[in-house]
Parts: sequence; structure tokens; C-alpha cells
Amino acid sequence: MSGARRLGLGIDTGGTNTKIVLVAESGKILHSAQVPTLPTKGPGAFIKRVAAGVRKSEKFLGARAEFACLAVAGDVDAAEGRLRRSPNLPAFEKFPLRERLSRALARGVCVHNDANMAAWACYALELKRRYAHVVALTMGTGVGGGVVLGGTLHTGATGSAAEIGHMRVSFGGAACRCGADGCLEAYAGKYGIVRIYRSLAAASGVKTRLSRLKNLEPEQIARAGAAKDVIARETWKEVGRAVSVGIINLVYLLNPDAIMIVGGVAKASGLFMPEVRKSMSKESFRAPFGRVRILAAKRDDLGSLGAALYSLEPGP
Amino acid sequence: MSGARRLGLGIDTGGTNTKIVLVAESGKILHSAQVPTLPTKGPGAFIKRVAAGVRKSEKFLGARAEFACLAVAGDVDAAEGRLRRSPNLPAFEKFPLRERLSRALARGVCVHNDANMAAWACYALELKRRYAHVVALTMGTGVGGGVVLGGTLHTGATGSAAEIGHMRVSFGGAACRCGADGCLEAYAGKYGIVRIYRSLAAASGVKTRLSRLKNLEPEQIARAGAAKDVIARETWKEVGRAVSVGIINLVYLLNPDAIMIVGGVAKASGLFMPEVRKSMSKESFRAPFGRVRILAAKRDDLGSLGAALYSLEPGP
Repeated sequence: MSGARRLGLGIDTGGTNTKIVLVAESGKILHSAQVPTLPTKGPGAFIKRVAAGVRKSEKFLGARAEFACLAVAGDVDAAEGRLRRSPNLPAFEKFPLRERLSRALARGVCVHNDANMAAWACYALELKRRYAHVVALTMGTGVGGGVVLGGTLHTGATGSAAEIGHMRVSFGGAACRCGADGCLEAYAGKYGIVRIYRSLAAASGVKTRLSRLKNLEPEQIARAGAAKDVIARETWKEVGRAVSVGIINLVYLLNPDAIMIVGGVAKASGLFMPEVRKSMSKESFRAPFGRVRILAAKRDDLGSLGAALYSLEPGP
Repeated sequence: MSGARRLGLGIDTGGTNTKIVLVAESGKILHSAQVPTLPTKGPGAFIKRVAAGVRKSEKFLGARAEFACLAVAGDVDAAEGRLRRSPNLPAFEKFPLRERLSRALARGVCVHNDANMAAWACYALELKRRYAHVVALTMGTGVGGGVVLGGTLHTGATGSAAEIGHMRVSFGGAACRCGADGCLEAYAGKYGIVRIYRSLAAASGVKTRLSRLKNLEPEQIARAGAAKDVIARETWKEVGRAVSVGIINLVYLLNPDAIMIVGGVAKASGLFMPEVRKSMSKESFRAPFGRVRILAAKRDDLGSLGAALYSLEPGP
């Protein structure tokens, strides 16, 4: 109604902290804050804490967003604005997140999977809407993703689309947390990468410094790989082989312009991408494999930024 | 402009014959004919033969379609209206099909992959546009598919989307005609099914009637399976295991409302679908797997029908 610039509001719910981000239409961050998620205190208290945080941020800016978008990890029922299932936030499952947050903020709210929102940030911000078909592959504790096709976020029949981490990369392969075997996440999620390192170290018969660590992290395996540790390098090669099957399947099915790798493990992409590129170069369908650009995202706030930008879309 | 009903024109190019179909907007076939494809005579002669066939059909009907859609197997460059690569029609590769056919027919023409057109027929005709997100899985000599998302045909960045047959269902599995290993087609295409039967028959140590046949066809293995032949039944189980990996990957990535199995091998779906349903029932993400309907198409003219219906879409 007014000539004022519109403000986007994104809220990204993590297991520990929840980020609140206010952005301009350009994607420029105007203000950001965080509140503790405290899942054990229940979703009602969480809604109050978030609403107070939003009020504080908007008071500081002296401006108000018309609409808000809540990003959360798990199987989101976007139509109902609820979490169906969440490994990180089981206490929030089935709670009417959208309805309660909408009431507390006195504005419209949408709820989406956080990887879908990261995909939106890849499409709208990182790639500046230059490409119509963009896939985000999120690699952190788990593996997930989001799909933008023809400039539209594809969330699917039940809002569960782009669960890329549970695509099978191996007939009856390694066990995944989801209960199935051979999922991409079982090779390229945090526990998958650590499992590969430990099994290669065990097979080598030598106790390595890293294999003695109880809480081994992919970051440590990445540092060892960069320092030319043989077992670490072989680990990333195996991760790369699994990721290449996932990416090859994505390309055959969706024929995207770009695939962006997002999340903590994206920082190690220099260690596993050579294997992916080698596999892709062998595919005989040259048109789709020649077109697709595989990129690694540098920033790690794409979930909250994507949610803030998506809140500015018509009918998010 | 006039009040007359619009007519759709679809031309489906097979390796031997090319079907010409004129349909009403309802999908009702008003006239159909076929002309020999004769690929060895070259694409120029093919265009003339098709144009003569269309003229004859339209004269018979006393009506004219405003636009035509040509369906063809292979990697289609829809933007350029050419075949990039075609195992069945190598002589047609790179030829300006759209431009020449448009000139010969004196109207607009689009060129699309035949499996994409079959997917459009599944969405628009078989499922009557009741579902927004529909995948067709075509199982004939090769394995392919098409994807309709949000009621829009998704052809991808280079028109190569939905090459479902080349999604990997096994790390380093059976060799595919495309040069890669472990493609769905290597298990569920005609030569894959025959290979599985032959290797199971060889392993059994008994020469079966079918294993003696030089030109064994999936139809014969289906008949044997229906007659409770043990090796044939085990063959279809293995086909089902491969198809289930493909379908599970489709569901995780696209979360469709429906997947329709189309083509000659769809007729054997009663033999391999129990294995697929068993695999799907084990997946822990209940929302997308509970939603998706898996159906087998009964008619085998969905490519030409889909092309005819698609010619009626705005900007096909």
C-alpha cells in the first residue's frame, strides 16, 4: 500500500538456537538476532520466545514485515503448517506451528523445510534467478535438499519433496538412520563419513590419531585430507562416489541448470568433488551433464535467508 | 476465433511406423492413421510422408488442427526442435525436424520426447488432471519417463529431464546400453529382463524351454511367470527390486501424487509390483509413500495421444 520497501522475515529453527532475519528485497540483511530454541520447554514457549525476538528486531529497525516464513528441519506438512516428523525437534511434531505463530505475530506465516528454504536462497540470491532449474544438496549432520523448477519451489504432494538424503545410492548398502539401507545420507551425512573413515582405518590395521577420537567430526577428516592423510583422502573419495550417484540421478531426473552444495560438509567439496566430476564426465548423455553447474555455497545462513526472501513471494 | 471446437494433432514417430492422431479437447480420438517411418530414406522424405498423411487425415475429417506436436524417442532438444541423440533413429539426429515439419504443415510445431508426451497423456487424460504431480515410467525396449509437476510438463534445462532409465539403482551393477553400470534400464528394459532370466536359468543348471530361444521376449517371460515357472517368477522379483529402487528415489525427490507405469512391460506389472509395494511399505517416511498411487496404464497409444493433447496447450 505505501511506497516503503517491503521487508522479508525469516525464522530458522535449529536444535539449539533459532535465527531471526529481516531482509530487504535485494536479500541484504537489515537485522539478525537469535533466541534459544529450548525444545524441552515445549513448542508453546518457543512460539512466545520467537514472537518476542521478532518484536524486538522490528522495534530496533523501526519497520515491520507483512509476512513471516518459518524454516524447520524435518518432514513439514506445508499445507497444514506443521511438522510431521523431526529427528531434532520431536517435541514440536504435530504442534500447530503456523497457526500459533501467526496469532503471536499478528500476520500471515508459512512453514517450510529448512533445506527447501536454503534451495530458495540458492535460486533467488546466490544465483540471482539467472537459472530456472536449481537443486540444493544440503550436507550437514544429515543430507537433504530443495528443488526449484521453472522458478517455483517444488514441495510435492505432501510437502516432502527433495529428501535427497534418502535416495538410494546402493542396493542393500550401508544402514541409514531412517531404517533403510544404501541411502545417500548413510555415506555423505556426518555419521556416514565418520563410519567410512573408521572402517577404512580399521581395515588398514593401523590405529590413527583420528580413529582414536570418540567424537570424530567430518571437519577433522577434512583437515586430515587436506594434509594428505591417505585414509582421510580415501574416505572423501568414497563420499564422492556416493554423492556422484546422487547427483547423476538428480541430473537424469530433473536436468537442472545448477546444483548447489550447501552446509558444513560443502566446505570439504574440494576433497570429494573431483570424484563426482570424474563420474559425471563418463556419462554418455552430454547435453544435461554439459549444462549443469555444480557449485559449493560459501555462506552458512542460507536457510534463514531463504526463508526471509521466500516470505516476500506471492502465496509462499 | 471461431466457435468451432479445437483439434489436437499428435504425431508419434516409431522406428518402423509413425502414428498420426487427431483428437478433440476431451481426448477423444477423432481420426488416426499411420505412415511408415522408413528411417533409411532420410528425414526429408519422412517429413513429406508425414505431411501427406496429415493432409489426408484432415481432409477426411473436414477440419484442421492449428498446431502439431511431434513425439520422438531419444534426447530431444525441445528449444531447437531437434533430436540430439536417438538410438532408434540415428539418421534423424541434428536434422531441423520442427522447422521442416512446420513449413510442410504450414503451422506451428513442437518436438518432444515420446515418454514426456506419454506422461502428459497420463496427467491430462488417464488421471483427468485430478493430481498436480504425476510421473510416467515407460517400460518397453528401453526405460524412460516423463514428469508433470504442478500441472506443467518439466523438460529441464536442455529438454533431457526424466531419463528415468538411466538413474542408477546399483553401485557398479549390470552394464547398460548407455555405457554406464547399474542403470534401471539394465534391469527393467527388455534386454535387462532377458539377461536376468538367462543368468538365473544358467545358474539353475537346467536348460529351460525359454532359455533355448534365441529371441527371448519379456512377454514370454511374463507368460511363464503367470504359469508359475519358478525362474520366470524370480526374474520378475529381481526386476521388481530394481524398479522399487527407481520408484523410491522418484518419491523421495519429487513426492508425486501418482506414478503411472506405461508401455509393453507395464502389462507384466502384476508380476513385479508386489516386490515394489513390499519395498515401499518398509520406508519410514509415511506421508509421501502413503500418498503416492502406483498405477499401470492399460492403453499403449499414450505417446501419440499425449502429443495430440499437448498440441492444445498454450505455448507447448
